[in-house]
Amino acid sequence: MAKQKDISIIYGRHPVTDALRSGTPIDKVMLQQGIRGEMEKELRHLCRDEGVPLQVVPKERLNKIVRGNHQGVVALQALIRYYRLEDVLPGIYERSEAPLVVLLDGVTDVRNFGAIARTAEAAGAHALVITQKNSAQINAEAMKASAGALSVIPVCRESSLITAIEYLQMSGVKVLASSLEASRPLYELSLRQPVAFILGAEGEGISPPVARAADEQFVIPQKGTTDSFNVSVAAGMMLYEAMRQRIQEGTPS
Amino acid sequence: MAKQKDISIIYGRHPVTDALRSGTPIDKVMLQQGIRGEMEKELRHLCRDEGVPLQVVPKERLNKIVRGNHQGVVALQALIRYYRLEDVLPGIYERSEAPLVVLLDGVTDVRNFGAIARTAEAAGAHALVITQKNSAQINAEAMKASAGALSVIPVCRESSLITAIEYLQMSGVKVLASSLEASRPLYELSLRQPVAFILGAEGEGISPPVARAADEQFVIPQKGTTDSFNVSVAAGMMLYEAMRQRIQEGTPS
Repeated sequence: MAKQKDISIIYGRHPVTDALRSGTPIDKVMLQQGIRGEMEKELRHLCRDEGVPLQVVPKERLNKIVRGNHQGVVALQALIRYYRLEDVLPGIYERSEAPLVVLLDGVTDVRNFGAIARTAEAAGAHALVITQKNSAQINAEAMKASAGALSVIPVCRESSLITAIEYLQMSGVKVLASSLEASRPLYELSLRQPVAFILGAEGEGISPPVARAADEQFVIPQKGTTDSFNVSVAAGMMLYEAMRQRIQEGTPS
Repeated sequence: MAKQKDISIIYGRHPVTDALRSGTPIDKVMLQQGIRGEMEKELRHLCRDEGVPLQVVPKERLNKIVRGNHQGVVALQALIRYYRLEDVLPGIYERSEAPLVVLLDGVTDVRNFGAIARTAEAAGAHALVITQKNSAQINAEAMKASAGALSVIPVCRESSLITAIEYLQMSGVKVLASSLEASRPLYELSLRQPVAFILGAEGEGISPPVARAADEQFVIPQKGTTDSFNVSVAAGMMLYEAMRQRIQEGTPS
């Protein structure tokens, strides 16, 4: 196992397949272009089962990462353990809690991602959902921006956000997307029920197919002239509103 | 006028006093150590009247900033115009609005400051209040983090936060300070009346004398294990709650 900055590297056919089989947290596996046969099949199979992204890259890229004999396969170890939604959701219901989940659609900025994790954990959200592609790298900077929260809140890594939304909906979770064009304000949503908020990337917002998959769109009210709230501030407002409804409206007056 | 990075420099006795008299936005005036007499008196007087910080520095410091003959006095031009609370508050009442003001106590991080300005402007806050010392520098990075908001929302620069709080209180504004030790939750405050929120520095929070000057302390509810919300996220939650109450509870149902 070699070290590259703050990331641990695993290389060679057996070390990588062993790591995948033993559930070692892996950010991604890189396979050398042109490699076919048993090893390729085995890796594709294991990566799919474990939800680990597999990337095919030129040999030169692997040679840059590893000086030793990598045998055409290199894995980057992850700083956190990744979950699947199926691992996390049933346990929430079993504890008689109403799930509160945050889905990230294309939030690639490491600091924003860390800040959202910090807020989500402190506000009592049960899980963050990211995709295998087009997500922020969970590196030392993300860990720092999260103030430790990324070691506490489960991060679910899914191959498709649409599939994750469908799974949540089938499990009784209402999926909500903020949109500047929506008319229903955040505070009129019923957030004591099981809900998931989708957060889009700074600037671009939620992608149209993901927004269409949501059950409902809402708007965070705004009074000023600035175009919109920063994504981590918007996340804070949504999660605060969920906390408020769950605490305040849960108290008999 | 010389340029140093993105800051314009004004130097020499007459250019600096002229700039102060004409209301040119100035971040601070630096006066050479040992200079006494008419010029010192005049500068002290003008700076006090205009609310501009005056700093006495060694000659070497001025020589580093200006190559020409600075005559012992250098002013750094500001990227924004600064206001005083007295300039801003009466106009809010005249428009029959309930003031919503954000006071910053030792928030020196430039990005946090810019992010708070962005949120405050978008949430309809009327002004930010900072102190002459122990505030974030309003440089290009702060302007960028504010997404343009710092050119829109008035920034009031006061010599003392306690004096600013007393002025707000005399003007009928209730001053609120968040505290992890308080028991009253944010959502139980009455925020449709004139209010000001004090925000403390990341980590240290609000300084004890400033907290004591506030009318009321409150807590943002929290469910997780992370120690607290980031200051710009906390600002977002407070300002969202104020917006919610002002919009939702203002609507006849």
